[in-house]
Amino acid sequence: MRTGIWLVGGRGSVAASTVAGAAAVRAGVLPPVGVVSELAVFRDLPLPSFDDLVFGGHDPATVGLAKRVERLAGDGVVPPDLPDLVRADLHAADAEIRPGLTDTGHRAGTADEAIDTLAADITDFRARTGADSVVVVNVSSTEAPVTPHPAHASADLLTAALRRPEDAGVLPASSRYAVAALRAGCPFVDFTPSTGARLPALDQLFRDHGLPYAGSDGKTGETLVKSVLAPMFARRALTVRSWSGTNLLGGGDGAALADPTRAAAKIRSKDRLLREQLGGPVEGGVHIHELPDLGEWKTAWDHITFEGFLGARMTLQFTWQGCDSALAAPLVLDLARFTALAHRAGRSGPLRELGFYFKDPVGSDEHALDRQFDELVGWAHGLTRAPR
Amino acid sequence: MRTGIWLVGGRGSVAASTVAGAAAVRAGVLPPVGVVSELAVFRDLPLPSFDDLVFGGHDPATVGLAKRVERLAGDGVVPPDLPDLVRADLHAADAEIRPGLTDTGHRAGTADEAIDTLAADITDFRARTGADSVVVVNVSSTEAPVTPHPAHASADLLTAALRRPEDAGVLPASSRYAVAALRAGCPFVDFTPSTGARLPALDQLFRDHGLPYAGSDGKTGETLVKSVLAPMFARRALTVRSWSGTNLLGGGDGAALADPTRAAAKIRSKDRLLREQLGGPVEGGVHIHELPDLGEWKTAWDHITFEGFLGARMTLQFTWQGCDSALAAPLVLDLARFTALAHRAGRSGPLRELGFYFKDPVGSDEHALDRQFDELVGWAHGLTRAPR
Amino acid sequence: MRTGIWLVGGRGSVAASTVAGAAAVRAGVLPPVGVVSELAVFRDLPLPSFDDLVFGGHDPATVGLAKRVERLAGDGVVPPDLPDLVRADLHAADAEIRPGLTDTGHRAGTADEAIDTLAADITDFRARTGADSVVVVNVSSTEAPVTPHPAHASADLLTAALRRPEDAGVLPASSRYAVAALRAGCPFVDFTPSTGARLPALDQLFRDHGLPYAGSDGKTGETLVKSVLAPMFARRALTVRSWSGTNLLGGGDGAALADPTRAAAKIRSKDRLLREQLGGPVEGGVHIHELPDLGEWKTAWDHITFEGFLGARMTLQFTWQGCDSALAAPLVLDLARFTALAHRAGRSGPLRELGFYFKDPVGSDEHALDRQFDELVGWAHGLTRAPR
Amino acid sequence: MRTGIWLVGGRGSVAASTVAGAAAVRAGVLPPVGVVSELAVFRDLPLPSFDDLVFGGHDPATVGLAKRVERLAGDGVVPPDLPDLVRADLHAADAEIRPGLTDTGHRAGTADEAIDTLAADITDFRARTGADSVVVVNVSSTEAPVTPHPAHASADLLTAALRRPEDAGVLPASSRYAVAALRAGCPFVDFTPSTGARLPALDQLFRDHGLPYAGSDGKTGETLVKSVLAPMFARRALTVRSWSGTNLLGGGDGAALADPTRAAAKIRSKDRLLREQLGGPVEGGVHIHELPDLGEWKTAWDHITFEGFLGARMTLQFTWQGCDSALAAPLVLDLARFTALAHRAGRSGPLRELGFYFKDPVGSDEHALDRQFDELVGWAHGLTRAPR
Repeated sequence: MRTGIWLVGGRGSVAASTVAGAAAVRAGVLPPVGVVSELAVFRDLPLPSFDDLVFGGHDPATVGLAKRVERLAGDGVVPPDLPDLVRADLHAADAEIRPGLTDTGHRAGTADEAIDTLAADITDFRARTGADSVVVVNVSSTEAPVTPHPAHASADLLTAALRRPEDAGVLPASSRYAVAALRAGCPFVDFTPSTGARLPALDQLFRDHGLPYAGSDGKTGETLVKSVLAPMFARRALTVRSWSGTNLLGGGDGAALADPTRAAAKIRSKDRLLREQLGGPVEGGVHIHELPDLGEWKTAWDHITFEGFLGARMTLQFTWQGCDSALAAPLVLDLARFTALAHRAGRSGPLRELGFYFKDPVGSDEHALDRQFDELVGWAHGLTRAPR
Repeated sequence: MRTGIWLVGGRGSVAASTVAGAAAVRAGVLPPVGVVSELAVFRDLPLPSFDDLVFGGHDPATVGLAKRVERLAGDGVVPPDLPDLVRADLHAADAEIRPGLTDTGHRAGTADEAIDTLAADITDFRARTGADSVVVVNVSSTEAPVTPHPAHASADLLTAALRRPEDAGVLPASSRYAVAALRAGCPFVDFTPSTGARLPALDQLFRDHGLPYAGSDGKTGETLVKSVLAPMFARRALTVRSWSGTNLLGGGDGAALADPTRAAAKIRSKDRLLREQLGGPVEGGVHIHELPDLGEWKTAWDHITFEGFLGARMTLQFTWQGCDSALAAPLVLDLARFTALAHRAGRSGPLRELGFYFKDPVGSDEHALDRQFDELVGWAHGLTRAPR
Repeated sequence: MRTGIWLVGGRGSVAASTVAGAAAVRAGVLPPVGVVSELAVFRDLPLPSFDDLVFGGHDPATVGLAKRVERLAGDGVVPPDLPDLVRADLHAADAEIRPGLTDTGHRAGTADEAIDTLAADITDFRARTGADSVVVVNVSSTEAPVTPHPAHASADLLTAALRRPEDAGVLPASSRYAVAALRAGCPFVDFTPSTGARLPALDQLFRDHGLPYAGSDGKTGETLVKSVLAPMFARRALTVRSWSGTNLLGGGDGAALADPTRAAAKIRSKDRLLREQLGGPVEGGVHIHELPDLGEWKTAWDHITFEGFLGARMTLQFTWQGCDSALAAPLVLDLARFTALAHRAGRSGPLRELGFYFKDPVGSDEHALDRQFDELVGWAHGLTRAPR
Repeated sequence: MRTGIWLVGGRGSVAASTVAGAAAVRAGVLPPVGVVSELAVFRDLPLPSFDDLVFGGHDPATVGLAKRVERLAGDGVVPPDLPDLVRADLHAADAEIRPGLTDTGHRAGTADEAIDTLAADITDFRARTGADSVVVVNVSSTEAPVTPHPAHASADLLTAALRRPEDAGVLPASSRYAVAALRAGCPFVDFTPSTGARLPALDQLFRDHGLPYAGSDGKTGETLVKSVLAPMFARRALTVRSWSGTNLLGGGDGAALADPTRAAAKIRSKDRLLREQLGGPVEGGVHIHELPDLGEWKTAWDHITFEGFLGARMTLQFTWQGCDSALAAPLVLDLARFTALAHRAGRSGPLRELGFYFKDPVGSDEHALDRQFDELVGWAHGLTRAPR
């Protein structure tokens, strides 16, 4: 069954890696390393195959996907010969990208009208490609935290506000895309810490429309490691006394997060895990610094002090040197595949069982990676065993 | 119910930390940090309480426990005032330590006679202290790998060999202590990578006598971290390409492991985990270097290269700076408590559900810490719910 | 010749380590590790001996030096038996500590009067101890950057302003201590990044009075390492592309630097080195985070990316785990000894040849440690060979 | 003046990087990053320019330089477009490579004959290219330590032995190349820890022939960092208590050094520095492990414990992630340029002033990088100011 993946931020590094990687796997030139849904444990599930996937998206940027992938090759992220091998697929996806919300564009008229335009882009894509289902995934840059508005509290209030020109700014961009997905009858996945569907009004709308949504903030590096180390300390009854993290980010992500208000959203979602896992706040914190020289790469250094038996004071440090887009892309594919399956199985509302993929999972307080993995496996198999 | 903990290597750093720590917890001067059996999930189990524990052991060393603990204070492992606070308990335990096997002593006569002497030490201790059960725990230095002998294959052959003066060397020291435990009717736990009870003949004897045994090689530092990081890579479908570990060890452990034949046993048990978790061998290896300047401390540096989506090559490094005896001691208490419970519940043979504590768990191929934790919890609760 | 060391911040950790260490060296119970002036190359210089040193200082704190040193022992900085060994010396120094400027005290009356009181404390100390020379060393917490004032521009303007009640705030505390030193006829050394004598008006006054001064901001850890690594890259013609530093600070220093305006002074002096050594600004920056759990210790992680031949991109990381007061104290002794010698040799104005000790050396742009060491050696020997 | 660089190991990674890099700099497509002789301080010296350099060498390998450089591009060492940009230069150098000593070849006949063949290769190259001077540089794999032979003691004994078929093995390969250089009237530089010219007999021969030689073992990574950190500790009077180094090496170097006898030579030259700089042996040691997955890259982790004032114990760790050939190649160019200049200036015997470039500098005990740099600068300028 043909399945569409509609990428908000469709010309960024993550999107480019997703499209290029799916094409490379389909063509058999690269193995699906990092694609969790390809693990043996998921083999029997009727997930959309790589051959079934078609890509489109929203992005005001005009630099095409082929150029992006060439830049990834120059940065040593992907093999030098990959751009040529998957050029046709990149062009095909590029042709399905629409500008979406632009800085100026969404100020004119009501939010409602703008959202309808976005939704039309998605339904046109679905019709044109013959996709049975389209999953909308937000992989654009991190927004500043949302400004509170009374209309966020209920579906009715929001619906009314969206129609009022004076409330054109009631929803941040990420939430407009979530509503557009909804209007197009599509599930929505937020891979960023932006607001997306995480407002009471939107949660209600997704439930009302029988559509699932998932998020938020893909767990790709430092937080992934934390999600196994923090439970390790907890299970060994060791007292973590401080946990300090420094993140050096290159590329677009670094620039976006150099803005303190945007970084705040990211840091909040990174901090949640430790509190949950360690039973309370610990000293230290997460710090994000832009370092353009790193390009597509990021480096995180975490310094953890802990206390053992007899008051002995010990330290664990780790340094993670990863490539964000190569880490994120296979998870985007996983999320789209699992969400499409859930959609077909009639699930709606927050998919808390996808917490395995997120720093700040909607609907769940579980942050231990192993528990999240078990939940994912059980849930995914349950989708097909017990259709509703 | 009074429970004895008989420590082979009763005057070493691990033993001293165990006795001092138990006393400090009992006296309420230190919390039971690092004692897993004190976690909420085990609260309802009828484990021996800290008030119930009495200590004795074998050690040819003549430097008393009080001196050892003073040295630990000087090295910054335990609080400066601890030696004075627990001095009475240290003297009490010291008075229950017998020389056991010495380098010269065990060469005269048959192995059988030597083992009987060891067993008598343990039964005397049990009688004197009124302990209901005594768990023998080997916390002595790592031995060289055992020299194969035909009598290792069956209980009958071994029983005969032990009586022949010309076969006095049929068993290494750690296995003699295991047999002594058996003859004294006690469970045996091997916290070291030495042979201990891990010979077919001994396994048979423990089963025949209805006694449990556990081991081997306490998982206290680098391998603990590996037991959560390796599953993390596996669950994220990331391909680990190399894993190189360097261990800098001070103190007695470092000196023992500077002997390449002894190090071999340790390294083999450290290597097993990666093969199991990652589905095959990876490049790299574990290296152990003595560094007396570290005293009671050890530092491990692990360097891991892995491959993600699109062939992207990434790196994770960690540095663990820990104190071996402070990490080991609470696990020794855990193992003694759980093993005593299992003994009382009638369990015999290898306790594979204690794999959570070991680098090389007897009877189990599971090395993922979270799975091991779940097994431990389920098993421990089963001991009381369904006695056999 | 008896030499006084007057410590502004006389009851802090650095002061306590300085007094305790000098006493321990004098008593022969500890070697002068870290005391550069004890190196063979300085052996023939007529520096004040450890027997010649007497200590006093200003500090509004009332917790005595003995308590401070006991806390250092508890934190594992100094040997557990040290507090008892040097107790008499700590009490003697404690008796010579005066409150100095307090938060409330220096707001009444003119700055002039307050300074006179400080100067009298110092001259009384000199008279009472019979010291031939007293060096005033600022080891108190870092101040916020100074508020500019026209009177900073010249000695005459400043002298007038100090007498006006409405200009009572013309000088920050560190500069008041510098003027007090001057009035007492003493050299002044600023071990902190505070303003101290670094104002044109004060520079002029020190020159006019024939008194030397030195500073600022003792180079004890991360910057020390940078002062050898940056020249290494420069001499090997390797292009440093980014240099990011994270400093985790416990204790008092951490708390003081959690205040962003105070941290700014520190970070500016830390940044200077790279610009000088690498011929221009590089990406990245220095970040300081408070981590009270570290107590007297600090940890710095530096991440450096550089480019080699053929555009190859490489990385160097280092982690420094040090104890600030143990690193600072021997340098305080060095600075007092060398400054006393310079004073006796008739030197006045900024002692740029002491740049070896400082992150931000007055009167010098040289930041390469080896060049600074050579300057120090040549200058110190010149002091005695060619008296002016 | 045309200058030849004759590379023993002319088709290895270092040689390929050297030839490609020189071509790229000459063509103006890459800056001479890492080429020390291009620093401003050497600007006025009559060093051979990049336009003057011609390349040839000995190597039994048949894989051409272009293929090597393509592999370097694939490993992310050099820009993807470099192989095409410098292809003509690579082919030109490739055409000047002769097989030299092969495993089988040098067993037949006398050593003398074999050496004459090597020397003829070099003189032919010089004649063909019109080079005024040719510097022979050994960049081949590390040999096992030399087997002692009485003929190593004097030029006369060696000359005789070389003529005896039964003494065909009197010299290891690196020393045969050194003698060949000598016979061709060329200076010899050993960039490896192999024996090369470091035998009394060869030293005498170089002096007698008025030819200079330099070596040994290029200081490119971990040891470079040590050569600035060790003096830092010494100048700050801090006591280094242990220094442990782990080197993970990919590529050819790793494989060669997996052979313990070859590693021994490397480790010995790496250890020398610490003993010299720190005034005695320290605990720890250097360990080398092969890790083919690293390809052209190497990672070194050094762990240093040191003691400060008052017995405080501190730690410095660093991780160096570098590309060996990109680090070595510019130094090969430097060494050839400076050695050619010295040759023209009439210098003979060991060039101890090139110690800046070597782990184990011939004729010098100075290992502090800054002192070595100063020596280099002074010496290089002296070559032109005061010809002998």
